[in-house]
Amino acid sequence: MNAVTELRQLLGSNAVLDANTLSERAAGIWRPDEPLRGVALARPDCTDGVSKVLRYCHDNGLPVVTQGGLTGLVHGADTDDNCVILSLERMNAIEAINVSQRSATVQAGVTLQALQEAVEPEGLMFPLDLGARGSATLGGNAATNAGGNRVLRYGMMRDMVLGIEAVLMDGTVVNSLNQLIKNNAGYDLKQLFIGTEGTLGVITRLSLRLREAPNTRQMAFVAVDRFDQVSALLRHMDRQLGGGLSAFEVMWKDYFALVTSPPAKNRPPVPQKHEYFVLIEAQGADPKSDSARFESALEAAFEKGLLSDAAISQSETDCQQFWAIRDDVEQIVRRGAAIIFDISLPIEEMENYIATLKRDLEPLNTGPLYVFGHLGDGNLHLGVVTKPARYASLRPQVEQVVYGPLASFKGSVSAEHGIGLEKKPYLSVSRSAPEIALMQTLKRALDPRGLLNPGKVIDCQ
Amino acid sequence: MNAVTELRQLLGSNAVLDANTLSERAAGIWRPDEPLRGVALARPDCTDGVSKVLRYCHDNGLPVVTQGGLTGLVHGADTDDNCVILSLERMNAIEAINVSQRSATVQAGVTLQALQEAVEPEGLMFPLDLGARGSATLGGNAATNAGGNRVLRYGMMRDMVLGIEAVLMDGTVVNSLNQLIKNNAGYDLKQLFIGTEGTLGVITRLSLRLREAPNTRQMAFVAVDRFDQVSALLRHMDRQLGGGLSAFEVMWKDYFALVTSPPAKNRPPVPQKHEYFVLIEAQGADPKSDSARFESALEAAFEKGLLSDAAISQSETDCQQFWAIRDDVEQIVRRGAAIIFDISLPIEEMENYIATLKRDLEPLNTGPLYVFGHLGDGNLHLGVVTKPARYASLRPQVEQVVYGPLASFKGSVSAEHGIGLEKKPYLSVSRSAPEIALMQTLKRALDPRGLLNPGKVIDCQ
Repeated sequence: MNAVTELRQLLGSNAVLDANTLSERAAGIWRPDEPLRGVALARPDCTDGVSKVLRYCHDNGLPVVTQGGLTGLVHGADTDDNCVILSLERMNAIEAINVSQRSATVQAGVTLQALQEAVEPEGLMFPLDLGARGSATLGGNAATNAGGNRVLRYGMMRDMVLGIEAVLMDGTVVNSLNQLIKNNAGYDLKQLFIGTEGTLGVITRLSLRLREAPNTRQMAFVAVDRFDQVSALLRHMDRQLGGGLSAFEVMWKDYFALVTSPPAKNRPPVPQKHEYFVLIEAQGADPKSDSARFESALEAAFEKGLLSDAAISQSETDCQQFWAIRDDVEQIVRRGAAIIFDISLPIEEMENYIATLKRDLEPLNTGPLYVFGHLGDGNLHLGVVTKPARYASLRPQVEQVVYGPLASFKGSVSAEHGIGLEKKPYLSVSRSAPEIALMQTLKRALDPRGLLNPGKVIDCQ
Repeated sequence: MNAVTELRQLLGSNAVLDANTLSERAAGIWRPDEPLRGVALARPDCTDGVSKVLRYCHDNGLPVVTQGGLTGLVHGADTDDNCVILSLERMNAIEAINVSQRSATVQAGVTLQALQEAVEPEGLMFPLDLGARGSATLGGNAATNAGGNRVLRYGMMRDMVLGIEAVLMDGTVVNSLNQLIKNNAGYDLKQLFIGTEGTLGVITRLSLRLREAPNTRQMAFVAVDRFDQVSALLRHMDRQLGGGLSAFEVMWKDYFALVTSPPAKNRPPVPQKHEYFVLIEAQGADPKSDSARFESALEAAFEKGLLSDAAISQSETDCQQFWAIRDDVEQIVRRGAAIIFDISLPIEEMENYIATLKRDLEPLNTGPLYVFGHLGDGNLHLGVVTKPARYASLRPQVEQVVYGPLASFKGSVSAEHGIGLEKKPYLSVSRSAPEIALMQTLKRALDPRGLLNPGKVIDCQ
């Protein structure tokens, strides 16, 4: 008997794909040409099915990799020929939307976009938002503690999860589907499964906090000439808008020029000659006064010398175009083989850090460095362009240059993408030996055989 | 050699009190006449000192109870004659306030009020707030995941902690003093120490997120006649104020009458004849338009039939008086021996739950039941008055009546006070056997000898 046969006996035959069939699937959204690999792919349609798969693998010493929408960026759900793949794709029901409680209960395989759309008619919003919303699942969003565009106002996924049902490696179902904002009855167990990238348990269901949907939006594209003005502008706008600031995205000069010059399809809303460009978004509820408030906050910033130029959105189309400029990361990829980074560091260190980076990249003779990011959260994305032929040899050197100085700048090698396999060699830049040892203590306590998503985030000997 | 002598050798003689001297202190803020008990009280002035105490106790099998401001309400820091008391009272330095990063780094023994006052001159705010602010320490606030008056807008203490330095029972110092809003570099270790009531480690330092201080405040005291209007009003105001709503406190009729009639010193801002009374607070940044926005939101609520009467604050004095009415819990205590509860449950269940409670209390022949709370967070406080002579015999019966139905209402036996010793017998009302077993797994992994705050929250065999 092999794993496929035995898993089919547990789940039913259509719930399990064999190695051959599963290899017709792609290894990930960003790797369409790479076949998925594994002993078997199990697709249970309920929590009990997930429990059966895990118990079977536990008893037989089989490694398990849980997969959601496969939109991760750090090889956190990579598989090999020896593992069982546990896909939550059939657990895609939105079980309840509780309007007065402003919460939703969902199975882990529901996509982010499906939930966003389901709550909209109730005047509610699930505030997590990111580009991969159509494929990324809520279980995956929780397992990786997803961030995205509105962390400044609503927090990360961790802040939106009220409760979790998870299955431990031995098949134990831990139902901690709390729906309350306040619940101090013992340890907050959901934290074990949020942001641990599937290494401590498998998330099967979630209860999520919903928010009132805003009905106005104001945006501005602002030019700034000195970095200290950027952080002062963040404080000024956050304070003036009294809870309404929803995004504060910064682009360094080179990135702004790239995404507002042909062949990019957008044109600069403000002249390209400045040093920094900030996209500011506020969301509110008062169509009568929100625009005036936003404009007067910007005027006050101008009077205080915090900005050099500004273009204010006049319509929802303008808003969309402003975001399109910020999001046109494709222009980096178009320039060559790009290495994209996701890091965070204290705002006051950013200018020094980028100067250090430029200096240290110089001798490597790479293409240009592009810098942009969710500055309001301390999160920068970096793109380093290389010639395709030099990509493989340059990549580890560029990683060293990018990650190395973060230790002294008290930065993180991962702001929102997680660690997976890709950043594991650099985890010790941001985490001390006692921290990593404590992570290993947790791993051993919850998965003593080291079978759950093995090798991801930390080694677990 | 005894513990006092040996601990003095490690820390210096003035850093350790013996059993006799420590018994001159009170067991807690609310128990001024009860002497503190313990083998020794160690007061290290730095993290290394905390580490020495813990390693010593670990090696000698001595139980340790960590103490902050002793303002807890569930006997979570109770001691006995056999334990070493670890007081953080000398670790009371605010080490840094980083204005551009909007964060602070503090030692665990700093009081909440000291931090609030220290950040004010920078135009910043530490948004946690609760009555015991002058004594409660930030380490204790984190260890108990404190809530308070503005959870609706800013979250609980958990949401304000960016990083933690903690010492494990074996003396290992885990410095995870992250200052970044976004940091997905591995497991989020601070969660192990937040809300675990000192059972998994000792918090020695914290980095905390600061917010822009609002500069306007609007309040209203509102009368409502049906419970479904209360929850509709919450949604309406939250939506209309677009991020500005900072408190939504509800008082049931009996409580409102109690705190607005002599001998209570406040008078009713709206007539007492209604069923529910809501204190609504918004905080903003625009003196020009915030009041008008608040008033028009209330007018719209009135037009939608969501409220029956309202008094709107005209001054900061009015605001303080409105809060004084809500906070005059002393009036309950004045009526007899009061049993006070802190629970949470879904808003839509509250009306049924209170009806159940009244029905089940009836045969016990107690005094009146008073209900009020942070309804916006699902958090109710209940006060059941008894005759002093009957308090001891009635208390377990009343607890049974209050906690028992919470399981079927999906409520929590502790919204914000924690479990400690007091609520441990009722933990299983809100937590399933697999959840409690998983808490025990964590406890065994981090404190295998069961020496840290033993017996609190869960048993750890």
